[in-house]
Amino acid sequence: MKLVRFGEPGAEKPGMIDHNGDLRDLSEQVDDISGAILSDASLDVLRTMDQMKLPLVEGNPRLGPCVGDVGKFMCIGLNFSDHAAETGAAIPEHPILFMKATSAINGPNDDVIMPRGSTQTDWEVELGVVIGTACKYVSEEDALDYVAGYCICNDVSERHFQTKLTGQWTKGKSCDTFGPTGPWLVTRDEVGDPQNLSMWLDVNGQRMQTGNTSTMIFTVAQCISHLSQMFTLHPGDVISTGTPPGVGMGMKPDPVYLKAGDVMELGIDKLGQQRQEVRADG
Amino acid sequence: MKLVRFGEPGAEKPGMIDHNGDLRDLSEQVDDISGAILSDASLDVLRTMDQMKLPLVEGNPRLGPCVGDVGKFMCIGLNFSDHAAETGAAIPEHPILFMKATSAINGPNDDVIMPRGSTQTDWEVELGVVIGTACKYVSEEDALDYVAGYCICNDVSERHFQTKLTGQWTKGKSCDTFGPTGPWLVTRDEVGDPQNLSMWLDVNGQRMQTGNTSTMIFTVAQCISHLSQMFTLHPGDVISTGTPPGVGMGMKPDPVYLKAGDVMELGIDKLGQQRQEVRADG
Repeated sequence: MKLVRFGEPGAEKPGMIDHNGDLRDLSEQVDDISGAILSDASLDVLRTMDQMKLPLVEGNPRLGPCVGDVGKFMCIGLNFSDHAAETGAAIPEHPILFMKATSAINGPNDDVIMPRGSTQTDWEVELGVVIGTACKYVSEEDALDYVAGYCICNDVSERHFQTKLTGQWTKGKSCDTFGPTGPWLVTRDEVGDPQNLSMWLDVNGQRMQTGNTSTMIFTVAQCISHLSQMFTLHPGDVISTGTPPGVGMGMKPDPVYLKAGDVMELGIDKLGQQRQEVRADG
Repeated sequence: MKLVRFGEPGAEKPGMIDHNGDLRDLSEQVDDISGAILSDASLDVLRTMDQMKLPLVEGNPRLGPCVGDVGKFMCIGLNFSDHAAETGAAIPEHPILFMKATSAINGPNDDVIMPRGSTQTDWEVELGVVIGTACKYVSEEDALDYVAGYCICNDVSERHFQTKLTGQWTKGKSCDTFGPTGPWLVTRDEVGDPQNLSMWLDVNGQRMQTGNTSTMIFTVAQCISHLSQMFTLHPGDVISTGTPPGVGMGMKPDPVYLKAGDVMELGIDKLGQQRQEVRADG
């Protein structure tokens, strides 16, 4: 199942992409695509409906972030061995966790706005994991049972803010619009093994990132298990699981960063594509 | 004005402490004490009511966290020069920002539960700043205009999780129950200058932390201004602004950490007191 949120920012409606790729309105069934409807039982109710009887949405509305009311937006840093190498960082012993502000979450095709003074805004295509059922102290073996589904996240990052403003990465990760999420929340039954998904990102049509979740240092299951030893993961929480090589910061001979007018396009197998134009804040 | 939330966890009602120190029910006036009612105009409506005509709440109900639906729970690290010294860290050039998971937020007198495997759970009395009006790119001069009020935060911290699990402090700061917040949200007109508030914390009746917000490296106004250069601060966001000396990690000759059965009591001028019992997770 491909769940979406469509409409104006802050007023998105719940929807579903049907077998033909058309958008259907789920407003009569659920209030929102958010933690409250992401348990296996709730998703089964939606799964057993006749999709073709849902109201067809005409036109081409904006898509919002595919999950509403996100409680925690967690990110795993340096989780691809080849990306760790390009940044010159050591392979971490445990998953590196940082938080991205939930106020950074953006629709998959909304503009990305560089904050004033930004000169080092960078891209990161990542596999987003959406929690469906609350969990704590879960084993690696059981971890994926608590996943509602997956989506694309662009972990947009201001490298100067991230690394030069003294301590902790959150500053460079949390700027408004730095969290495009979607287009779809694809339920885990449709995705299957999350450790064999190709991923890519282009800037202005030029391929910058190419990777596959098979080269993650810590698998999705390992990340969930590790985090759940420390705190409860709640329905609607999102874990963005790290980026493959090819970020601007790692370019040779010099880093390459985004500028106003640039276009990012990115995709992951089975999860669709995103497209963002870059703007500078006035 | 002293605003509170009272009742069972997850079902708190809004309330107010009247001039006599009694609890009054605000359920007829507002849905919750949260970002939606924290603008100056909304607070003025509550301020001009006759408090003594509000329903008196009998008994002694549990107090919940004094702000509901917190979007970002931001913390400033090493923000007291004497605390930085006790940890051996350099004085930072800019405010150090990390995020605490909002799922860690707890009532001011609820138990603090050490997660399984924790041996280094520590205390940190801090001044919490609650944003009342959205702001971005604000100057230091204007920053306090966007504050709804202040509260006590205990930035409970698992030092092994924070420092030994590879990278970023969030892991040790985000455990469930590690964010006691309250008892009251005291509006800024009642607090006045936030840079002259005494603060203290006892463990089992022994004074561990003594400080005053006058020794902050970065003032509340400077923290707000700095953070707002990177992202929007939204109503209901909370900034916990750092802790004075006396944390367990800094004790000589050896660090001292919490154990099951310990009692933390802490207070800040004008903002009341908190009391938490420590438990180990089963």
